Amino acid sequence: MTMRVIILGAGGAGLSAARTLLEHAPNTQLTLVSQEECPPYSPVVLPYYIEGRLDKEQMCLLNAQDLPPSVPLVTGSPVQRIEPARHHVVLADGRAIAYDRLVIGTGATPVAPDLPALRGARYAVLRTLADAEHIVAAQPRKTAVLGAGPVAVELAVALKKRGLDVSLIVRSRIMRRLLDPDFSAIVEDLLAKAGVNLLLGQHIKEVHQSGSGSTPDSLEILTNRTTVQCDLLVVAMGVKPNLDFLEDTGIAIGASGGIIVDETMRTNDEHIYAVGDCAETTDLLTGERGINAIWPEAITQGRVAALGILGFDVAYHGGIPRNVINVFATPVYSAGSLIGEKVTTETPLARIRHTFADGHLVGTQIIGEVRPGSILAPIVKAATHPNWLASHLRLAAIRTGEDQATGRQPASETPCSTE
Amino acid sequence: MTMRVIILGAGGAGLSAARTLLEHAPNTQLTLVSQEECPPYSPVVLPYYIEGRLDKEQMCLLNAQDLPPSVPLVTGSPVQRIEPARHHVVLADGRAIAYDRLVIGTGATPVAPDLPALRGARYAVLRTLADAEHIVAAQPRKTAVLGAGPVAVELAVALKKRGLDVSLIVRSRIMRRLLDPDFSAIVEDLLAKAGVNLLLGQHIKEVHQSGSGSTPDSLEILTNRTTVQCDLLVVAMGVKPNLDFLEDTGIAIGASGGIIVDETMRTNDEHIYAVGDCAETTDLLTGERGINAIWPEAITQGRVAALGILGFDVAYHGGIPRNVINVFATPVYSAGSLIGEKVTTETPLARIRHTFADGHLVGTQIIGEVRPGSILAPIVKAATHPNWLASHLRLAAIRTGEDQATGRQPASETPCSTE
Repeated sequence: MTMRVIILGAGGAGLSAARTLLEHAPNTQLTLVSQEECPPYSPVVLPYYIEGRLDKEQMCLLNAQDLPPSVPLVTGSPVQRIEPARHHVVLADGRAIAYDRLVIGTGATPVAPDLPALRGARYAVLRTLADAEHIVAAQPRKTAVLGAGPVAVELAVALKKRGLDVSLIVRSRIMRRLLDPDFSAIVEDLLAKAGVNLLLGQHIKEVHQSGSGSTPDSLEILTNRTTVQCDLLVVAMGVKPNLDFLEDTGIAIGASGGIIVDETMRTNDEHIYAVGDCAETTDLLTGERGINAIWPEAITQGRVAALGILGFDVAYHGGIPRNVINVFATPVYSAGSLIGEKVTTETPLARIRHTFADGHLVGTQIIGEVRPGSILAPIVKAATHPNWLASHLRLAAIRTGEDQATGRQPASETPCSTE
Repeated sequence: MTMRVIILGAGGAGLSAARTLLEHAPNTQLTLVSQEECPPYSPVVLPYYIEGRLDKEQMCLLNAQDLPPSVPLVTGSPVQRIEPARHHVVLADGRAIAYDRLVIGTGATPVAPDLPALRGARYAVLRTLADAEHIVAAQPRKTAVLGAGPVAVELAVALKKRGLDVSLIVRSRIMRRLLDPDFSAIVEDLLAKAGVNLLLGQHIKEVHQSGSGSTPDSLEILTNRTTVQCDLLVVAMGVKPNLDFLEDTGIAIGASGGIIVDETMRTNDEHIYAVGDCAETTDLLTGERGINAIWPEAITQGRVAALGILGFDVAYHGGIPRNVINVFATPVYSAGSLIGEKVTTETPLARIRHTFADGHLVGTQIIGEVRPGSILAPIVKAATHPNWLASHLRLAAIRTGEDQATGRQPASETPCSTE
């Protein structure tokens, strides 16, 4: 008898699990359930849709007809509840579907931050294609984006490329969890030079709104320092897992709000796995558990869960913070930690910073294009000779005119907190 | 009183030492001695000169007038001998110059390999601008290159781009010390597709020659498998340090043929330093001493020697094998070791292989352009979690259909000897 598997969610994690199952066990009796109306797409390219560079067809990852006839793709049907004791899932339309194994990959939605100014205010978010369509359909001319992370930055770039007036309201600095302050400053420069109205070190205090559904809203946003007029406000301040349907199931949820899983991505119910943005995994750098809502980790987690279901002995030990975005023509990359000793390299094409702890590379930041030769030699050296790093830092300090006795790097090069 | 420093050699190491001295101690009484007639240039771009992309002026790194008036640049004067006891250097023209500190950076010349077939044969080499001018002036139409390393490959590419007929005679495979066999095969493919006549696994057995100095030579080269007709043979099979002038000085020379130096680049004479291709340094991967004749190491060594002379406490612990060349439009990069566990990543733009030992990255090979996102995450992961690599290898093995019980990689992925 073949195994019945239900996958809830057709994002990166769910699709990766489905593809892995079909590759290794084509006879799996698989059902793929998406809560969205449209066929599966990559959320990574939503900014390109907003910019106008991609249309809906180009974003599509999978259509029902791409799946084997034996695999139903159920769209537009959010899960109402799961009943672990009875091994079945109940959809919003009342249908109950039975499973031997269930994979939860329902993703996350933008948080509605608990800011007094936003209570009762009209604002958009960007997580789904429907969100992106809403933003485009609103035909805004003046927009404001609230947030400082990769999504906020990519959204501001996309709106600017669409030809709109864009204000970006940033509480402290750009991408502060992913970039050192001087790297943030370079990105801030790129945004400002492209005409984004950058409001750094500001937070939203009040929103005054007028207009109705038929005409563009007119919003007046007061920060601690200025007033911004716009007709669309988008809030991009993080996500929380979509897990309302888990109430009273006994499936354990962690402090981060994500489902607790072991290294095989299995929940406390041995028949149920969780993957992607709704699963709580380990940060390899800190050892802490949390949500790491990024596409490549979702792909790996989906694969591990599927292989585990099929009896392979594989594990997902955790991930690292990482992201790469395009700020107009310039790639901005970050992976890993900001805490440690810094080695900064300038090439004609890129500014590269490696962060080391105990002689190990623990983080890298890159702004600009990368050529093979410049990146990797320091990593190899640091890994192969414990004294190389100290020696390199000392040489760098001397080159930059720092005090030779202490060998200290300039202020902009010192380790900084990830906050 | 200012210090008198003589630097022998105006290559990467010598110029780096000179620049560092002038930066930190502008009053140094410095003399820069080059054995070549022309002003200093970068040998790295000699292939571009042969190709016709750069002219002599564009290769020039430094003219006498770029130096402070107090710093003489003596060109075309090979060193005849040094007299350590008297602290002076005697040039070929008979002049004696006194020093407080001497930096030897006289580089290396191509080895004349001890192959019976080459005894008495006319062949060219490529190390200096004069060599490159000789190759261009010979106006060859059909050329043969003997060698398999980066210089041989770049030379074959340059001659082909110049529009010539090129045969490349390779004893085993391309760049076998820098690339795994399957990576060599990709480079071999690139060369063959561009029309280079690639003779792999062949060695030269006999050379028959006719013609005279006024007409292009006509050479018939017999390998163990075929016969190649050409009018110019270039041999690119490695280098040996230029140290004839050290006889009877008591300066210690190591088994590699390079000058023995400590971690400050100082020889067994406390007033004499050696840097660049004539110095014997440590391979960080193997711990062995040898010549690592590459530009970036020369730059670092020159800087360390100069800072040591100035009293800074700095050290050069050693280098790693590394190189980056362009094979027509495709960059080929290698750094570090080939021995260890392999993690191979394919992106649309590049094929990347990381080699790990004991969880440390010890080598990287890249063919193709590199985007920030794809390179670094595995390195960070391997460094931060000891089990990540095994887990990743196992996943990769399962993906490629290898036996899940052993988790072994396909044959092309297994560690190979550096020979």
